[in-house]
Amino acid sequence: MVKLSDVNSKLLKARYAVRGKIVARAQELEGQGRKVIYCNIGNPQALKQKPLTFIRQVLSLLEYPELLNSPEAAKLYPADLIARAKMIMGLNPNGTGAYTQSAGIPFIRQAVADFIQKRDGIPADHNRILLTDGASKGVQAVFTMLTNKENDGYMIPIPQYPLYSATIELYGAKQVNYFLDEANNWQLNEHELVRSIEEARKNGINPVAIAVINPGNPTGAVLSKENIRMVIRFAKANNLAIMADEVYQENVYAAGLKFHSFAQVMHELGEKEVTLFSFHSVSKGFLGECGHRGGYMEIRNMPDDVYGEMIKLQSIGLCSNVDGQLVTYLMVAPPQPGDASYELYASERGAILGDLKEKAEILGRGISAIEGMHAQVPQGAMYAFVRFDLPHAKGIDPEAMTSDERLKYEAARDSKYCLRLLEDTGICVVPGSGFGQQPGTLHFRTTFLPPKDDIKTLVEKMKKFHTAYVEKIKSAC
Amino acid sequence: MVKLSDVNSKLLKARYAVRGKIVARAQELEGQGRKVIYCNIGNPQALKQKPLTFIRQVLSLLEYPELLNSPEAAKLYPADLIARAKMIMGLNPNGTGAYTQSAGIPFIRQAVADFIQKRDGIPADHNRILLTDGASKGVQAVFTMLTNKENDGYMIPIPQYPLYSATIELYGAKQVNYFLDEANNWQLNEHELVRSIEEARKNGINPVAIAVINPGNPTGAVLSKENIRMVIRFAKANNLAIMADEVYQENVYAAGLKFHSFAQVMHELGEKEVTLFSFHSVSKGFLGECGHRGGYMEIRNMPDDVYGEMIKLQSIGLCSNVDGQLVTYLMVAPPQPGDASYELYASERGAILGDLKEKAEILGRGISAIEGMHAQVPQGAMYAFVRFDLPHAKGIDPEAMTSDERLKYEAARDSKYCLRLLEDTGICVVPGSGFGQQPGTLHFRTTFLPPKDDIKTLVEKMKKFHTAYVEKIKSAC
Repeated sequence: MVKLSDVNSKLLKARYAVRGKIVARAQELEGQGRKVIYCNIGNPQALKQKPLTFIRQVLSLLEYPELLNSPEAAKLYPADLIARAKMIMGLNPNGTGAYTQSAGIPFIRQAVADFIQKRDGIPADHNRILLTDGASKGVQAVFTMLTNKENDGYMIPIPQYPLYSATIELYGAKQVNYFLDEANNWQLNEHELVRSIEEARKNGINPVAIAVINPGNPTGAVLSKENIRMVIRFAKANNLAIMADEVYQENVYAAGLKFHSFAQVMHELGEKEVTLFSFHSVSKGFLGECGHRGGYMEIRNMPDDVYGEMIKLQSIGLCSNVDGQLVTYLMVAPPQPGDASYELYASERGAILGDLKEKAEILGRGISAIEGMHAQVPQGAMYAFVRFDLPHAKGIDPEAMTSDERLKYEAARDSKYCLRLLEDTGICVVPGSGFGQQPGTLHFRTTFLPPKDDIKTLVEKMKKFHTAYVEKIKSAC
Repeated sequence: MVKLSDVNSKLLKARYAVRGKIVARAQELEGQGRKVIYCNIGNPQALKQKPLTFIRQVLSLLEYPELLNSPEAAKLYPADLIARAKMIMGLNPNGTGAYTQSAGIPFIRQAVADFIQKRDGIPADHNRILLTDGASKGVQAVFTMLTNKENDGYMIPIPQYPLYSATIELYGAKQVNYFLDEANNWQLNEHELVRSIEEARKNGINPVAIAVINPGNPTGAVLSKENIRMVIRFAKANNLAIMADEVYQENVYAAGLKFHSFAQVMHELGEKEVTLFSFHSVSKGFLGECGHRGGYMEIRNMPDDVYGEMIKLQSIGLCSNVDGQLVTYLMVAPPQPGDASYELYASERGAILGDLKEKAEILGRGISAIEGMHAQVPQGAMYAFVRFDLPHAKGIDPEAMTSDERLKYEAARDSKYCLRLLEDTGICVVPGSGFGQQPGTLHFRTTFLPPKDDIKTLVEKMKKFHTAYVEKIKSAC
């Protein structure tokens, strides 16, 4: 029988906090009849966000194309969507039930290229676009492709989305941390990048790529164009590929801020040397179609022979799921003004984004008003990475610990805090140690996806809980 | 810029013939207006097989649940499927757009357990069932989990489906070949298993699992119960896990033959030590829903702590796509006699399986009547692995070659043959070297999925082509 000692030691070491023990405990409590406010994961439709009607209408027609021939269809579906479904059937006559090309259905890759062209005003090549089962699978494909030797390393932000750390561990590569600048709205800092890569090289690591998440997960930050330019220059100077995780590109709420894609900034810089992988997904934005596992990866500055290897890698898994490909198509080619389906689409989109913006404010303002808690109104994405202060128990001096001891001590502290928060209030958040944090700081990540009233409740309960938790430590001192 | 020399050397070495160069050439020819008969891949709905109506009806309702409330729905959908869709919405209220548990939606895992129980008359545990994006992703998860050290090896059949060889190469494990017994209807041979594992151990390889494909891909063979028993005993004696690829379990055509699952035979033997992974998919059988990327993996004889690691591995990719999970559910819980949708379901199923059986016979009989070609009527699956004889050109003596030279020589010969076949006749098959074959033999794999008339054409054209090809070699001698 397979025993734990037989299991891939890299798998044993990998950690993926977003679905860890606290979530398991939350499900247990819910099973016992407790109300749980799930703020642990960006899963909008599990938190009552409704899907966009037009997407589901087109999918329902494509799953059962005989509907297109029925007289009832005209009563049930807007005319433009019936026409759209017919067009899709023409361009993909094998339907939803056949394997596609490994890179994805050609007309959808072309639609993605058109979307990028329109979004950024730059050319895009459908032969450098791959449709993937969500962005995660694209990210993992890049790690598979670029990890060649044991000392190959990836620079990743701290805090980061743990897909990155878990996959690096699993694939046997080296994780190279660079800290985001919390004091400066979680932007990247050039000195810190230099420090990080120099330290890595000193340790015999060969950094091959830098990952950037913009808008940020878990930080909720939106990077400035100047910050992106700096990263591109840094990547060029250090011969790094760039992995740009841009799945929250539609989730920008802060006034005056704008999403800038790495592709667009690279184009402006005339940069033709740095290989860029950028990722997008149907799971976030205002679609929230996580369950459909759709997304794409766009690649720039990659020779044909290398791209051929990426296609081969995709072919081993055959292709991404067709419904996910179709949702990706609908994301990049939504209804246009004048279409029968447009008004509803625009109002649903507006409602979802408006609601998210409002909830970001309720959360950010509410939390930052709590003594000992620090957060800003998230500029984008679906998260706040909240810093909180805890006194140390009597006799404990973190400064006297080794860095490993300190990491463990702090991870135990934020985990205990989040578990207690769950037990006492039903609020389920993820400890900062699951994403990484500066030594000496404690955080948790919370989404602002639950309904507005739940967010308000969360802020109130959090305040009471935190005050009591701190009091308890103090009184034990 | 990323250069070929930067790419993971394991990826560079991996080969996946089913989507290789010959297929690319076929697409090129088709683009030029040539008629191509695609026999390279088991992709039924790309070859005019119609999806089962009930599956698509349920999916269309679940994608757009508002249909359920419309008076038109009753005209468009059978009553039992409307009720079924409502039941599914009740059991999975988040719908198709939310991430699910990492292992898959609980009620679907329970339905899979019930299906196994009913199919085999044995108990099954929904907490050892994981829903996967097609069977491929389940197979790859097992390779990820069990590959711990560089010398860990996997016994795989030769010929095999190249997912196995490609993934082993990619994950840095060792491939341990055992030859299937072509003279004995492609069954496994105990002496050959012993020879294979002894040779592997002599070479410092530590075999951790044995993969078996039943019904066979590319062989079309159905394993006898005695053969399966032998494999289980062999696995036990050698402390191997078993990977049972059972995706063609519904595709058994030969009179008197029956599919026996490894789970059932293990249960009969009272075997509680050997870890078993078995795989099933919605892509094959009579569904042919390849594009939906649905499937499951069932695990037996695995302790909780090890299973926890498998769940963690799945969680890093979040979950499999929900539509694929739903199709898996519908596969294991089809309409029952008395349901309004039953008659159509039964007739569609019967037509597809009857057609496949007939096409297997046309292909097998036709090919075996060609001089210099050897095939039997496929007992199951969707393929024939056809052996063909070619004379050697003047002055070439394969017996005088090293085994590496011979492998290359023969791979060049079958590839050249298949490419010429494509160019001359438009028939697209995959060279035997892509699956592996006994030294001294040449094969190709062909599906029998195209429409009946195409299969008849294929047999006729193949005869003319082969005769002419052999003549040409002879006349050059």
